[in-house]
Amino acid sequence: MELQEVKFEGWPHVLKAQQFDSGWIKNILFPLAIRMEGLYGHRLCGALLLDKEMISLFCGESTRTRASFEIAMHRLGGKVIVSSPNARLSSAMGKGEHFYDTCLALIEYGGDVLIIRNDGNEELGKLAVLSSIPIINAADNAEKDKQHPTQALLDLYTIQRRLGRIDGISVAMIGDLRNGRTVRSLSYLLAKFKGIRIFFVSPLQLQIGADIKEYLTRHGVEFSEHLDVREVAPHADVFYQTRTQKNLGTEDWDRADEAHGLTIIDKRVLDLAKLDSIIMHPLPCVGEIVREEVDPDPRAIYIESKNGKPSQVKCGLFIRMALLLIVISPEVCCSLLRTD
Amino acid sequence: MELQEVKFEGWPHVLKAQQFDSGWIKNILFPLAIRMEGLYGHRLCGALLLDKEMISLFCGESTRTRASFEIAMHRLGGKVIVSSPNARLSSAMGKGEHFYDTCLALIEYGGDVLIIRNDGNEELGKLAVLSSIPIINAADNAEKDKQHPTQALLDLYTIQRRLGRIDGISVAMIGDLRNGRTVRSLSYLLAKFKGIRIFFVSPLQLQIGADIKEYLTRHGVEFSEHLDVREVAPHADVFYQTRTQKNLGTEDWDRADEAHGLTIIDKRVLDLAKLDSIIMHPLPCVGEIVREEVDPDPRAIYIESKNGKPSQVKCGLFIRMALLLIVISPEVCCSLLRTD
Amino acid sequence: MELQEVKFEGWPHVLKAQQFDSGWIKNILFPLAIRMEGLYGHRLCGALLLDKEMISLFCGESTRTRASFEIAMHRLGGKVIVSSPNARLSSAMGKGEHFYDTCLALIEYGGDVLIIRNDGNEELGKLAVLSSIPIINAADNAEKDKQHPTQALLDLYTIQRRLGRIDGISVAMIGDLRNGRTVRSLSYLLAKFKGIRIFFVSPLQLQIGADIKEYLTRHGVEFSEHLDVREVAPHADVFYQTRTQKNLGTEDWDRADEAHGLTIIDKRVLDLAKLDSIIMHPLPCVGEIVREEVDPDPRAIYIESKNGKPSQVKCGLFIRMALLLIVISPEVCCSLLRTD
Repeated sequence: MELQEVKFEGWPHVLKAQQFDSGWIKNILFPLAIRMEGLYGHRLCGALLLDKEMISLFCGESTRTRASFEIAMHRLGGKVIVSSPNARLSSAMGKGEHFYDTCLALIEYGGDVLIIRNDGNEELGKLAVLSSIPIINAADNAEKDKQHPTQALLDLYTIQRRLGRIDGISVAMIGDLRNGRTVRSLSYLLAKFKGIRIFFVSPLQLQIGADIKEYLTRHGVEFSEHLDVREVAPHADVFYQTRTQKNLGTEDWDRADEAHGLTIIDKRVLDLAKLDSIIMHPLPCVGEIVREEVDPDPRAIYIESKNGKPSQVKCGLFIRMALLLIVISPEVCCSLLRTD
Repeated sequence: MELQEVKFEGWPHVLKAQQFDSGWIKNILFPLAIRMEGLYGHRLCGALLLDKEMISLFCGESTRTRASFEIAMHRLGGKVIVSSPNARLSSAMGKGEHFYDTCLALIEYGGDVLIIRNDGNEELGKLAVLSSIPIINAADNAEKDKQHPTQALLDLYTIQRRLGRIDGISVAMIGDLRNGRTVRSLSYLLAKFKGIRIFFVSPLQLQIGADIKEYLTRHGVEFSEHLDVREVAPHADVFYQTRTQKNLGTEDWDRADEAHGLTIIDKRVLDLAKLDSIIMHPLPCVGEIVREEVDPDPRAIYIESKNGKPSQVKCGLFIRMALLLIVISPEVCCSLLRTD
Repeated sequence: MELQEVKFEGWPHVLKAQQFDSGWIKNILFPLAIRMEGLYGHRLCGALLLDKEMISLFCGESTRTRASFEIAMHRLGGKVIVSSPNARLSSAMGKGEHFYDTCLALIEYGGDVLIIRNDGNEELGKLAVLSSIPIINAADNAEKDKQHPTQALLDLYTIQRRLGRIDGISVAMIGDLRNGRTVRSLSYLLAKFKGIRIFFVSPLQLQIGADIKEYLTRHGVEFSEHLDVREVAPHADVFYQTRTQKNLGTEDWDRADEAHGLTIIDKRVLDLAKLDSIIMHPLPCVGEIVREEVDPDPRAIYIESKNGKPSQVKCGLFIRMALLLIVISPEVCCSLLRTD
């Protein structure tokens, strides 16, 4: 394993799903994440990032993702030297300060990695050019191509851990596909693999963006669009459910959805679904899964680990530990992978 | 000292005051808290929970209680791997996420103890059943039986440290007894001891709940209800003052209170009170104690340590250190108590 | 170096700029800050405050200043045992609790230093009298003499590092001088040095307070007041720009400013300014510097380090490390300075 192989396009910044290719994902990221799973159980990973420093700047709302990054850092022996749970509320951004200025000041203070959740419309790319510290995008709201790349990487890892493969799978992406950033990032990543089939299930008004469809076509991914999840349920290996925002100009459809469960996952969908399929959700979940019917099903893996395999939430922790190692200490990654 | 003796009903979760009996309080909790006081002074306690991890999720407003738990963890050598000062504002709960989902995800991440302040109406009991990690209730707002059990335990410890006994004391509980959760939890605990006499002092509309009165009667605790604190002042060993919410449908009474000081503790009450009584308050205090008159009195022990004995605030730190040790490392507690 | 020399008036509390004299600044603070710069580069400073504890209570909005203090503590090996990013929102102060009570409770919990950003009108002096722990004022909003003393000390250090001297310099202070606390604190400090010349540039309605002018006169500092920064641009060694609050009863003037750039720093001002002058700003910056014109100029040092010398932001980190050392471990400072 050479140092160069550990690094990805745009290294050390993690900004968009497009940066990663399937070779790096299969040969570097996944083996490291598996390694983290093993070390995690034995709590033997506590010295890998000893005395390294994380700055965590979350402008928008988040507890789960912020916790995931910060716990990953602690588990590797690192320190979280600044944690801003809701910087939009608690920082000078309330006084009109430009988001970049807050970030630039934090970069001046130094540290080994900067985690940014940005709920403004700015691109992080401009900031990365100026930054001497690796920046990891913990979800942005950029006007043109909003993304959540670490979520997509952990989604992919969850699929790999559960289904044992990514090439050749069929994925139903469901919900508000126009506004969701996780489906965008995951679509980009899936396009790097072979034989992928995507079913986009959403109201007409909330369909996936034309740019994503164009990207998938260009990369030879087969996809189709649907209104009712039950149409595609028998054919999907993965159900990737996302939050629908009620009454986002979709009143008529919302009523139909509520009445007929067009995009809701419930027992009827489970009955149609393959026995070896999986139900995923990036969370928060606010009604689009009928929890009391779906949670107990072994296919529901969004929060709870089942059958000795990690849940999607837990996979997030392992992927983020692996990513932190890669951007902060690529040499350590090399030697970890070499001794595998 | 056997391991089983250290554990309490419902172990390892601390959810309600009713879980604890007087034997455990006297023989386990108090000796450990005293031990923490001793170690604290010499800063010798820093290795007892080395590398153990606390997740702190405060949905509602709190700085003091959150600080108390987090400092207790740090003093024992542990780490606070996630701290959410106001999760209701800064987490996806703002997007409608169910409180349980945030908690379940945090439990998936792992850790050694989860501190929860919940300002919603949900019961923590359901969550505890699912949790592999000890949960400590840092005050809830449950519809039926809202509680603040660690506050009640520290209140009891403060009484023990100041009066040298709990059996046989007379306690005046004053203020908004209908809505206060600390008076509920403390009533449950006092009922475990012998010869307790309680004076409930409040406006008619804010009297203590019927369920608490029924519980006290069942446990043979003598109590009476009053409108004016001065009626009971000469007889109380403990004045437990709590926050009154002005104009909570009590306009007439509020005016009377303001004019005549019916539930306010001031110099006139101090003059009536026994010289060896104590004035307590769970804080925040917003006017129901005339601070400039009462603060300097040696009987006022809510914030300031006096005469070489810890204040109520400081007792909170020792009790929380003891509780953390008990739920995270009961074996260490055993050996600490054995070597006493 | 004797222990007494390290201590300043009012030690160990840092409340107001007036506490410090030029001898202490030149012989103690600056040499320690330089020492921090050196250690910082080699990451050799991590044991100086080992196991010492910081409590950080920010009532008002701040990410940068809070980060600066907390990172400084981490870099010295200390712990941040409580961090409250926006206590006014997340603490019982929302329930009406008095600011002092929150602080007094935190002091009861113990710790080695308490950092307070107070956006209320209370004076910290009263609290300092009661506190067994050093208090550092991270900006207050006191009615009579609001201050930001650590900002002023870092401003002074930035000037020293960039210009090599403080005696004899000319400083243009620009913006909302009536409401800005940083210009107040910096004026007090500059008055301790020799041959200082201050140009106050602001709208008539936002001129510097009479108390500051009286103080400067009493200390023999020459100053004058202006409406247009270009009048003084050729004569200033330091441009200290501050945030102007648009439409604070200054509509006419605001329009004139926007149209004519009376207090705005842009290329026209740069063209008039001395080549060896410096442009400073305490941040946040919201329009009073034309960033795309000024940021690339080598004289602009508010955020970005240039020519191997630290930016104003970075100087803040070194000054705060030095201050923490002085108030927590004056003996260590003595021995550090002795071995210089």
